[in-house]
Amino acid sequence: MSAIETDMLDMGRRARAAAAAVRTAAPEVRTAALGACAAALSRSTSAILAANGRDVAAARANGLSEALIDRLTLTPERLAGVADAVAEVAHLPDPLDRELARWTRPNGLDIARVSTPIGVLAIIYESRPNVTADAAALCLRSGNVAILRCGSDCLQSSLAIHAAMVEGLVEAGLPADAVQLVATPDRAAVGALLTGLEGNIDLLIPRGGKSLVARVQAEARVPVLSHLEGINHTYLHAAADADMARDVVVNAKMRRVSVCGATETLLVDRAAAASLLPIVAEALIQAGCTLRGDAESRAILPGIEEAEAADWSTEYLAAFLSVRVVEGLEEAIDHIRRHGSGHTEAIVTGDAEVAAAFLNAVDSAIVVWNASTQFADGGEFGFGGEIGISTSRLHARGPVGAEQLTSYKYVVRGVGQIRP
Amino acid sequence: MSAIETDMLDMGRRARAAAAAVRTAAPEVRTAALGACAAALSRSTSAILAANGRDVAAARANGLSEALIDRLTLTPERLAGVADAVAEVAHLPDPLDRELARWTRPNGLDIARVSTPIGVLAIIYESRPNVTADAAALCLRSGNVAILRCGSDCLQSSLAIHAAMVEGLVEAGLPADAVQLVATPDRAAVGALLTGLEGNIDLLIPRGGKSLVARVQAEARVPVLSHLEGINHTYLHAAADADMARDVVVNAKMRRVSVCGATETLLVDRAAAASLLPIVAEALIQAGCTLRGDAESRAILPGIEEAEAADWSTEYLAAFLSVRVVEGLEEAIDHIRRHGSGHTEAIVTGDAEVAAAFLNAVDSAIVVWNASTQFADGGEFGFGGEIGISTSRLHARGPVGAEQLTSYKYVVRGVGQIRP
Repeated sequence: MSAIETDMLDMGRRARAAAAAVRTAAPEVRTAALGACAAALSRSTSAILAANGRDVAAARANGLSEALIDRLTLTPERLAGVADAVAEVAHLPDPLDRELARWTRPNGLDIARVSTPIGVLAIIYESRPNVTADAAALCLRSGNVAILRCGSDCLQSSLAIHAAMVEGLVEAGLPADAVQLVATPDRAAVGALLTGLEGNIDLLIPRGGKSLVARVQAEARVPVLSHLEGINHTYLHAAADADMARDVVVNAKMRRVSVCGATETLLVDRAAAASLLPIVAEALIQAGCTLRGDAESRAILPGIEEAEAADWSTEYLAAFLSVRVVEGLEEAIDHIRRHGSGHTEAIVTGDAEVAAAFLNAVDSAIVVWNASTQFADGGEFGFGGEIGISTSRLHARGPVGAEQLTSYKYVVRGVGQIRP
Repeated sequence: MSAIETDMLDMGRRARAAAAAVRTAAPEVRTAALGACAAALSRSTSAILAANGRDVAAARANGLSEALIDRLTLTPERLAGVADAVAEVAHLPDPLDRELARWTRPNGLDIARVSTPIGVLAIIYESRPNVTADAAALCLRSGNVAILRCGSDCLQSSLAIHAAMVEGLVEAGLPADAVQLVATPDRAAVGALLTGLEGNIDLLIPRGGKSLVARVQAEARVPVLSHLEGINHTYLHAAADADMARDVVVNAKMRRVSVCGATETLLVDRAAAASLLPIVAEALIQAGCTLRGDAESRAILPGIEEAEAADWSTEYLAAFLSVRVVEGLEEAIDHIRRHGSGHTEAIVTGDAEVAAAFLNAVDSAIVVWNASTQFADGGEFGFGGEIGISTSRLHARGPVGAEQLTSYKYVVRGVGQIRP
């Protein structure tokens, strides 16, 4: 066994030991710890920014793109935002020990389903230093213990953020091992996490690009909660209001093109295409979007590019939108079934019956009527934060906040009942 | 690609196609289908029993144990029980399209969390022909589509039961592919299921012994809901009523020794061991149980066997019980933490505060106060049936009935909201 494997196994054992303490800590203790973590982050500003400066300098030396360097860079304002986010999680309602259901059996047994933590979560993410604090805070709020593995480009920043978080934990009387950070950039550490560290990891959460998620899904020997791509659709039904259609589509596509809730394909009813498409397209093009249409939409919008087969299955994460004219609801649903990724789909229509049929038939994590797909976000759902949007169909689907990071157990109370 | 792999991929594609029809079928259609399946099972009695006779004859020729042959054998009464169980599932409340939560955001967005099917479930089980009907019925009730893979010893019986189920499905207007049975005993078919059939399996459920579950967990490339072993404990606290302790322990161990909810280890407080143990042990021994004790319990019960280290981590599934004297609550909890499998643990005590501490600290799927661990059962919980007891911490924990075989989606209703 290599030194890294030995270290990782030790990390797993320490996480499991810490899990019992975090799980049984009172909610106020976890709340206090989150407050202490936020305060520690604030007072560690100069140390964290200095560490971040080293990461950014190395990134420049390594020739990383400006987009990646921007994602990596912390400023005093951004770091204050990170601390504020942790403080907000401290104020979220505690998701543990909630009675999710309770009933009495004919034999008098009193059965309650009560929320519990999952246990030890391993979170593997790319070079966004803020995730070190965000993910740890959500784990702590939900009574879980975290093993964090960041991208190597943000390791110095993450180590400094982690040190502050540990100060907060220890101040509040929780074990330092409640949040551990893998301190080596060696990729063997990821391999060790994927094995589950001898039963000491209950859930893996990959948070990052397609190749990371694909590797975790292919190799993991423990359950994975993954966020796959969002090939999201907005469907303009014939009974859509033109102004609403324009505003919703422009927002769904262009508010931020790089988020997983961005719309990637626009479907328009044939009956309304000639009236709706010019209005919507003009606003999109003005906002900087390139349209790629099928033959029918290009007949209405002659200047736009031609969509190829691959466009219908592409998550652009960029200012491109594929456009297709459909016969009606059935064809729209069928297109989504064949090309969607099960993330978020919206319909714009004034017809409540058509909307209900769409919301029922479309089998995505989030289905939306008359609003932007960009609302696919834990914060917008009121979860106070998220660790991602799950496209899994097991455990949690859609935005994953503190509540979704819980499990449950059954508490059965009797008076001496025996089973016949 | 082998012929079996090709056949299995085709099975997966047909399951996915059927899933859309089953998911969007009205609850009454699925209820009617379950009723029709039960009726078809009844009128197919002679065909099913004849097929079962061929399985049993082959099993005898192959030298299977009497216990396995008994498990395999259908009688007219047992088959009537199978049909009745399907009819009961028809009467279970429909778990789909339930609003699990609903709230309105400050921007007016109306967000509902609504239960949905998971999709395509593959169930791999051993030679219990009744599972063919039970599992299919629970899948259907929850709007899922099933691919069933039975042990080779019950293949003829399962094919006959499956044929009856398909009659019922088709009568009710559901696709025949809603319940498929792998018709070959070739083990390559299991390997194909574990790969997920190109994304066409959403969840694997192994239902059987340790080696089957271990293989599935090691090789599956899709989520697995597994039922691991039940190394369950009953803890007699010093404030336990002696009669209740005796009745509960005898039931927990001896009602049926082969079920996963059977108690395997008895823990007794030192302060009450001398008074409680002789009473409990006498009743156990009279019921045919062999006790294996630690030094302290053997000092009180001199005739019993000596427990070895391995006994504390053994799921006997037989009339053996390991017995240990502990200092008190803390030591009992610690023993369970180190040796338990997270399935079901009980405390017997008249002290409500001690009970509450035990129920909170013990991190098992089911924790019980003053009742038998053998209540760990979907039917006893009022679920109307179960596909197993999950010791997973993700998705479903404890008894898995129709409700636990659902996922959810978010339905977001707006009036044209866009995200700032």
